[in-house]
Amino acid sequence: MSEKTPDDEYKTYADFIDVIRRRRSVRQFEKGRTVSPDVLIKIAEAGRWAPSGANVQPWDFIIVEESEMRNKVVEVFIQQANRLKEYAKGFPSVYKSYLANTVAIFIVLGDPRWKINFPHGVTQESEADYLRNNENIFYCSIGAAIQNMQLAITALGLTSAWLSGGGEEQTNSDLSKLLGYPSFLRAYGTIPVGYPSKDAAYRYRRPLGQVIHWNRYEPQKYRTDEQVDYYREKLRPFAMYRHEEDLNEWEDADEKLGKWKAAFTTGVTNPSEKM
Amino acid sequence: MSEKTPDDEYKTYADFIDVIRRRRSVRQFEKGRTVSPDVLIKIAEAGRWAPSGANVQPWDFIIVEESEMRNKVVEVFIQQANRLKEYAKGFPSVYKSYLANTVAIFIVLGDPRWKINFPHGVTQESEADYLRNNENIFYCSIGAAIQNMQLAITALGLTSAWLSGGGEEQTNSDLSKLLGYPSFLRAYGTIPVGYPSKDAAYRYRRPLGQVIHWNRYEPQKYRTDEQVDYYREKLRPFAMYRHEEDLNEWEDADEKLGKWKAAFTTGVTNPSEKM
Repeated sequence: MSEKTPDDEYKTYADFIDVIRRRRSVRQFEKGRTVSPDVLIKIAEAGRWAPSGANVQPWDFIIVEESEMRNKVVEVFIQQANRLKEYAKGFPSVYKSYLANTVAIFIVLGDPRWKINFPHGVTQESEADYLRNNENIFYCSIGAAIQNMQLAITALGLTSAWLSGGGEEQTNSDLSKLLGYPSFLRAYGTIPVGYPSKDAAYRYRRPLGQVIHWNRYEPQKYRTDEQVDYYREKLRPFAMYRHEEDLNEWEDADEKLGKWKAAFTTGVTNPSEKM
Repeated sequence: MSEKTPDDEYKTYADFIDVIRRRRSVRQFEKGRTVSPDVLIKIAEAGRWAPSGANVQPWDFIIVEESEMRNKVVEVFIQQANRLKEYAKGFPSVYKSYLANTVAIFIVLGDPRWKINFPHGVTQESEADYLRNNENIFYCSIGAAIQNMQLAITALGLTSAWLSGGGEEQTNSDLSKLLGYPSFLRAYGTIPVGYPSKDAAYRYRRPLGQVIHWNRYEPQKYRTDEQVDYYREKLRPFAMYRHEEDLNEWEDADEKLGKWKAAFTTGVTNPSEKM
């Protein structure tokens, strides 16, 4: 392990990781701001360079910046949020009217027809297996494009969120009628863009030592079924919306985390190593 | 549209888009190079900051840097490539032994249990719809983490590729036995990392004007079924592995693209506007 990475590469990385860490979902935008189309094009350009399976680039970006159309898109997402409240009880919902203060809303459409270019099997069994993994290839490509755009937004001093609700049947149908795209395309990602109305804080991240396994899977880092359930039943809204990276910073950490404190704040989630 | 983005933000963006554009899949690495664990940790750190649905962070990163284990992982992927040749005839295959010259291989595991934290419906119909969109949320989160790592690798002066084959049944089963993780976790992404043995060239990208739609979907940018088929039947291996961003640069562009030239090189893919 004698190789040194040159200083200039560390500098490039330092600038880069700063963008990575500053990117986060913000839901309070300054009113009355605008940006030039040039800025919006720079965001799309970042998405365009994302990698994709078989290089098919199965995406289109609708940039909604006219205020009238933006208001109509916002209305669709308010209805989506209302359905979430009614049909997905228990999911922490967010009041979506903040979308009105965006400077633009990016709708990322995915085109499933391009999956024909991913591997397909010559036997029933191989085809079933490839088909399943093609979902991985398709969605991860779209995720990479959305992430590139989110990072570009951050690098430009703007801020964003990542809404997935456009992928739901009714919402996609509404958007497709409003924006005029064939409804077999789907709005997998929606990215409202604006100027942050206050400094955005970090959000909970699992400790690095818990995420990394050296050379083989480390069973003491396994997250048990009980931990998954505890997150859903007790922690989810707080881990989604509170402002600390490290859950130890919560004033009520002991109360909220109980016997799960170590599992959410240290490198060991599963001391028994049973899986 | 009077708002100006300050110069320093343009500088940040310029540095950032340079990383975005330099990232690409490279399959020729220099032999005999190593890196310090510190560099590998910096890569994982970028992945850790990716956004995820309900902030569940449904991933683990196995960093394989010991040469013996690396060779065994490479062997699994050589078998995966052989199966691809046998069971997915026609897919452009790549000889995967180049993986031996990596300094490390990152295995990105996805844990599907965390999907329980995404919206779930209270009626059969709403549950079916949310379940389907949960695949979008799950995979896009993993795609964002992988893309963050790929960009960090580029920022550090290294290079990578993005293998999806670990998501196939047999390959995941082999990796799970080798690396010791429960087989319901799945190796959705595999990222070999190394020093590029030559300057990497760009790859085909759709022209920006073709990808962007202003305020509503523009039907002249629709990609017809015939265009999708033409890509699969004629262009795929070239668009995947040749070195030009703009297909006009191909010496045999007229021959390879035929009547589809405009559709692959201009902002108009569908002059009839019929969809």
